[in-house]
Amino acid sequence: MAKGASISGFPEWLPSERVVEQRVIDTLRNVFELNGFIGIETRAVEQGSSLLKKGETSKEIYLLSRLQEVGHESDTPIEDRLGLHFDLTVPLSRYVVEHSGDLAFPFKRWQIQKVWRGERPQEGRFREFVQADIDVIGNGDLPDHYEVELPLVMVSALERLREFGLPKATVHANNRKLSEGFYRGLGLTDIEGVLREIDKLDKIGADEVAKLLVEGCGADEAQARACLELAELTAADGKELSDKFDALCAKHDIASDSDAYVLARQGLDTLAMIVDEAARIRPGSVIADLKIARGLDYYTGSVYETFLDGAAALGSICSGGRYDNLASQGNKKYPGVGLSIGLSRLVSYMLHTAGAHANRVSPASVLVAVWNEADRSASNLIANQLRSRGIAADVAPTAAKLGKQIKYADKLGIPYVWFPADASEEGAQDEVKNIITGDQRPADAQSWEPDTVYAQQTVTVEA
Amino acid sequence: MAKGASISGFPEWLPSERVVEQRVIDTLRNVFELNGFIGIETRAVEQGSSLLKKGETSKEIYLLSRLQEVGHESDTPIEDRLGLHFDLTVPLSRYVVEHSGDLAFPFKRWQIQKVWRGERPQEGRFREFVQADIDVIGNGDLPDHYEVELPLVMVSALERLREFGLPKATVHANNRKLSEGFYRGLGLTDIEGVLREIDKLDKIGADEVAKLLVEGCGADEAQARACLELAELTAADGKELSDKFDALCAKHDIASDSDAYVLARQGLDTLAMIVDEAARIRPGSVIADLKIARGLDYYTGSVYETFLDGAAALGSICSGGRYDNLASQGNKKYPGVGLSIGLSRLVSYMLHTAGAHANRVSPASVLVAVWNEADRSASNLIANQLRSRGIAADVAPTAAKLGKQIKYADKLGIPYVWFPADASEEGAQDEVKNIITGDQRPADAQSWEPDTVYAQQTVTVEA
Repeated sequence: MAKGASISGFPEWLPSERVVEQRVIDTLRNVFELNGFIGIETRAVEQGSSLLKKGETSKEIYLLSRLQEVGHESDTPIEDRLGLHFDLTVPLSRYVVEHSGDLAFPFKRWQIQKVWRGERPQEGRFREFVQADIDVIGNGDLPDHYEVELPLVMVSALERLREFGLPKATVHANNRKLSEGFYRGLGLTDIEGVLREIDKLDKIGADEVAKLLVEGCGADEAQARACLELAELTAADGKELSDKFDALCAKHDIASDSDAYVLARQGLDTLAMIVDEAARIRPGSVIADLKIARGLDYYTGSVYETFLDGAAALGSICSGGRYDNLASQGNKKYPGVGLSIGLSRLVSYMLHTAGAHANRVSPASVLVAVWNEADRSASNLIANQLRSRGIAADVAPTAAKLGKQIKYADKLGIPYVWFPADASEEGAQDEVKNIITGDQRPADAQSWEPDTVYAQQTVTVEA
Repeated sequence: MAKGASISGFPEWLPSERVVEQRVIDTLRNVFELNGFIGIETRAVEQGSSLLKKGETSKEIYLLSRLQEVGHESDTPIEDRLGLHFDLTVPLSRYVVEHSGDLAFPFKRWQIQKVWRGERPQEGRFREFVQADIDVIGNGDLPDHYEVELPLVMVSALERLREFGLPKATVHANNRKLSEGFYRGLGLTDIEGVLREIDKLDKIGADEVAKLLVEGCGADEAQARACLELAELTAADGKELSDKFDALCAKHDIASDSDAYVLARQGLDTLAMIVDEAARIRPGSVIADLKIARGLDYYTGSVYETFLDGAAALGSICSGGRYDNLASQGNKKYPGVGLSIGLSRLVSYMLHTAGAHANRVSPASVLVAVWNEADRSASNLIANQLRSRGIAADVAPTAAKLGKQIKYADKLGIPYVWFPADASEEGAQDEVKNIITGDQRPADAQSWEPDTVYAQQTVTVEA
């Protein structure tokens, strides 16, 4: 095959980097399962009609065509073609409706899978990446308490990832109803439009957003500035949130008995519950931050973004919210709440910024040396004895000079090299050498154990 | 979202079925890593030029197009378009060439990932499925001993899968050089053609194959029958193989000093080594079976297929071979040998034929009951205490009647329900009930442990 070439936006890890990604995945799975989430995997493709329905990413879909169909793709309407999923929420909604009879509700699920976005290559963004999601889906209704529990599960998961170099994470929460009520109270009607522009605040700044609100969302200058004031509001507890919000409503003449205020208050009460309950369980892990808007338009209540201390440039690394209308079947609704970690970006940060790295490339603790090819069976036997006791072992690729065999172990980071006894020598014993410490001693494949510190492939962070 | 619909060829497991698949994946990963294989993951897409180069599946590729490109797909030649990989060998070859400077050779890698084949939907075959592969790739050369070690790693992996209901597996090995030498000795020249037709033997029978050999591969009736005689040859050890083969050569006047015989003998020696060495380590696990041809044309030496006792209809569940020319860069060659398990079909067999099933849907061992919503924090605290000690716990979704909460646990298969103490009652203690045995006793979330048999989500096989 000709020399391969990397494809922009499709990251691939080297073996030692993959160790870090795999540990991150294992850790997340462990936390999700400890919390009673059920693992599923959905097919990589969905019908175009499903993919096109919701969300701003609908323009970044990869559609599929069979080789035989090339040139005739247009014969099939896009809605009937297959496309790669761009997130794990749309597939979950479809899965829940399709299998509702076989699921127990509320259905708590975790899912770690690749997703694809057909972005323009030149942007340097990932077009293939791994997401790690948790969601809970109700049948008909879904209690509010999941809106605080799910971000807290993610916080505990991200806390566990600090051993791989991740800084402390803080969830910033808002509620769509709070924003909508306030905007309506100001007299605005293009709620989705306002949310979409507010979502750009961190990227383009307040003045640009104000301009967009005036130009595209029917706001006058005062209304635009009021929206921005709301977006500046943050609070660490429900009382502070409530006081600041009411002061803002008073300033902008939003009457506390208006429909708009009532809607906003509904959102505010949920948000206050979330920050207060989170503070009880994990102080400082969740704050109210009213600029959080989430571009995707399927959210209907709580919305979350998560930021890492000292890594603002990364943006939100774990986002989500409550969506009451994504899945339905006839009269039946399946409201949900969930969050998604952008895992590939996180691993990239760990590797390239935090200095996380595997202690060795190979999972093997031991390389069994081979004195000559005729004796390879003896070395294989030793390796199999070690493996049967759970000790990962490799066998030297060739009966090269011993120095070359040790160099192979060293290159793979394998800490021990095993020297089989010379079969021609009476009473000769196997020996094992730790090539890191130089320590060498007699050993029996039926009972020897590696020192704990050298037993496992691990990930450490540079000091 | 509208009601979802399953898409033919894209299987999806229910949560309890996914438990089985996940355990199978975990088990394979464990075996592969015990044997010193390094885990990698490659991107799902390759350049069309890579995908089209080799292999009979080249006509079953899914090509991608961005939504914005719809209608203009033909502007880009297929070679420059992206397509989903149809196996894990072609991506490995590309990965090795691309990253050769960062890898230690021989490079032993495992890889478990989805692959896609753009087959016609009506065939009822999987178009998306999981493959589990091991390969070893050399830099320049690759010792023969891997041609026996790799099938044996797969045999030990398949042996471990017997706990999920898999019957005993036997690897059937052949060697392309042996077949080619014999065919050339007969006077045939369209070697790839003959191999392709012989590969159909199990499906269409000897008479049909003979007809195809005559009609399409330039064979006369006698040559065709000789090819079929070779295909009938099986042997459990090298001596038997050698004797039978030489008898066949004598019968068909293939001189033992001809170039053709020398080539065949080269393949025979490797094959004899494989069955003899395998017999020493795992008697009965590998046999020589000269009808094994493997349609894919990138194999150059050993080829393997694996069959399960009493499950002939499944066909080969683990196939592969040696390929010396798949990856190269300038003058440098990267010969490889590897095998691939068709994991999705295997899991399907375990679930639907062998009766493998999870003991419970939820990973949680415990459901903590909630007496009323105001006390939910107390239940969350108990669950978190259990989780911090590695015990997976869920909390009741609502403070419904106790019977309803127990029913929820039962539906998810959660064996224990935890009753928090009544906070208003002095000295009251938590209690935990095993809802399978009915046993109920006082418990402390800081120290309680589930009985071993109920502690973990496991997979069992129906008697």
